[in-house]
Amino acid sequence: MRKIVIGVMGAGEQATDEEKDNARQLGQLIALQGWVLLTGGRNVGVMDAASKGAKAANGLTIGILPTAHYESVSEAVDIAIATDIGNARNNINVLSSDVVIACGMGLGTASEIALALKNQKSVILLTSDRISQTFFSHLSPQQVFIANNPDDAIALTKEILAKSV
Amino acid sequence: MRKIVIGVMGAGEQATDEEKDNARQLGQLIALQGWVLLTGGRNVGVMDAASKGAKAANGLTIGILPTAHYESVSEAVDIAIATDIGNARNNINVLSSDVVIACGMGLGTASEIALALKNQKSVILLTSDRISQTFFSHLSPQQVFIANNPDDAIALTKEILAKSV
Amino acid sequence: MRKIVIGVMGAGEQATDEEKDNARQLGQLIALQGWVLLTGGRNVGVMDAASKGAKAANGLTIGILPTAHYESVSEAVDIAIATDIGNARNNINVLSSDVVIACGMGLGTASEIALALKNQKSVILLTSDRISQTFFSHLSPQQVFIANNPDDAIALTKEILAKSV
Amino acid sequence: MRKIVIGVMGAGEQATDEEKDNARQLGQLIALQGWVLLTGGRNVGVMDAASKGAKAANGLTIGILPTAHYESVSEAVDIAIATDIGNARNNINVLSSDVVIACGMGLGTASEIALALKNQKSVILLTSDRISQTFFSHLSPQQVFIANNPDDAIALTKEILAKSV
Repeated sequence: MRKIVIGVMGAGEQATDEEKDNARQLGQLIALQGWVLLTGGRNVGVMDAASKGAKAANGLTIGILPTAHYESVSEAVDIAIATDIGNARNNINVLSSDVVIACGMGLGTASEIALALKNQKSVILLTSDRISQTFFSHLSPQQVFIANNPDDAIALTKEILAKSV
Repeated sequence: MRKIVIGVMGAGEQATDEEKDNARQLGQLIALQGWVLLTGGRNVGVMDAASKGAKAANGLTIGILPTAHYESVSEAVDIAIATDIGNARNNINVLSSDVVIACGMGLGTASEIALALKNQKSVILLTSDRISQTFFSHLSPQQVFIANNPDDAIALTKEILAKSV
Repeated sequence: MRKIVIGVMGAGEQATDEEKDNARQLGQLIALQGWVLLTGGRNVGVMDAASKGAKAANGLTIGILPTAHYESVSEAVDIAIATDIGNARNNINVLSSDVVIACGMGLGTASEIALALKNQKSVILLTSDRISQTFFSHLSPQQVFIANNPDDAIALTKEILAKSV
Repeated sequence: MRKIVIGVMGAGEQATDEEKDNARQLGQLIALQGWVLLTGGRNVGVMDAASKGAKAANGLTIGILPTAHYESVSEAVDIAIATDIGNARNNINVLSSDVVIACGMGLGTASEIALALKNQKSVILLTSDRISQTFFSHLSPQQVFIANNPDDAIALTKEILAKSV
């Protein structure tokens, strides 16, 4: 039976230390809940940190790579999906996640949030950036949730999953 | 030799009358410049209005459909590309445009702007919505331009094209 | 109103002189009929030759590129669609064509024929290779047509289009 | 660290009883080797049978769905990837598999074999159909292997994996 998959999206090379620390914690907490972690799969930034956090807690990690090959895959990814569709894979990231958590903000992350909301997915914003919070809450008031820290994000994820059953 | 293609992105069913009026004017002005118009191809909203505007000025119109079939294509689209990749086609819309003009705002449009900027494309926002202007200018200060009306958008497009030669 | 689009598929770097000569003739004949030519868009092999043939007869040419950029586009392509989805763009090639003509054979071409037939498109094989003829006719007896030369392929295309109206 | 993924491709609704029986055995044998099974994910035909075989041996199963939603997912799929890219997902199926096993033949399967070979993947044909064997061996002599039964296919998979290390 299909397992619950939680997507953690965020910057690659541009991720800040705080975002990577949050991502690591998110990955760990997701694994501890028995959920599968899904990320963009590359060996940098939020994707890499979240995957490492999940593996530290013996979780299962899926990486949806933009490329045709595995060269850039995080060592903490168990299952690599090689899409070769570039940034169009952002739509697959969010469609394949029961809940999407955006850890920080950036152009790729913004596209994932917009695509997730377009596909009626709930999105949790783990960012203190007010401009981003305002923009997405304005676009989709019912589906956007603001988290102050990783624990908060997990609590919100549980609530969203409970409602969707 | 490859023709210059200008993408006009905007809402479908949710487009306002003002957005559709702007789109129609944009389509017409794009055609008058001798540029090709590219849209999401469907027979509603900004896509449909822009395509009709371009045809009124004898322009060439390309529609990048999300579906495998042509049922929902605008009657003003000359060349329909049936992608069958759903919202992932938003990435193709922006990659295939020399300049992207966002006419209004919505979830699909927001994803297209983010993907365009991620791909180093210049984006012109034709919207009076300050929240959207602030969000995207903040994410990508160098590549986002604000237009107050269709004529303004065309003038900005010319400037961007002149610089990219 | 949507124009009729005829797709010509075939090898890139591996195309033989005979295949390129056939492709050039096909492009020319397609343009003379007033149809739009669609190819994989790159500046090699069948794609390039067919596009050049069509331009020689003042036709309109569409190229569906596998890449995000235009570096490898044929100089004879008018409208380049930059998909950035690699070989997955083969499905777009065939979905966007009213009739698909395979000029020669190869791995990419074989995938396009199979995808076209899967999508209930008619496919004309312009190849003397009996193994390929047998394989595809066996898989899809109703939709596969064998042409002996470019003129033959155009006659078959007309028949298929007449039936599909 | 990335786990080894073996893709089993084959017909959906059109699969024969023999093909489904072979698929079930393949799934079981793949799981017993400790490999992850990847299929097209739907609840019919070869995909469904292979996934059920793998789960019977406590394996891990990935399903790459053509749709945006999970309605048609096999109950034996652990991780569903919702691509919403239709048959273009066939390219992802093969790119994400270390070895591809074609169990039977059909239009979708033929496209997957061609795309796998195009991407330099080795493909094992588990089919007694001589026409298919001849066609693909002819197109790609080095990468096509013929198996007479599921055990044979697993032995060939081991050899291919051993060479690719």
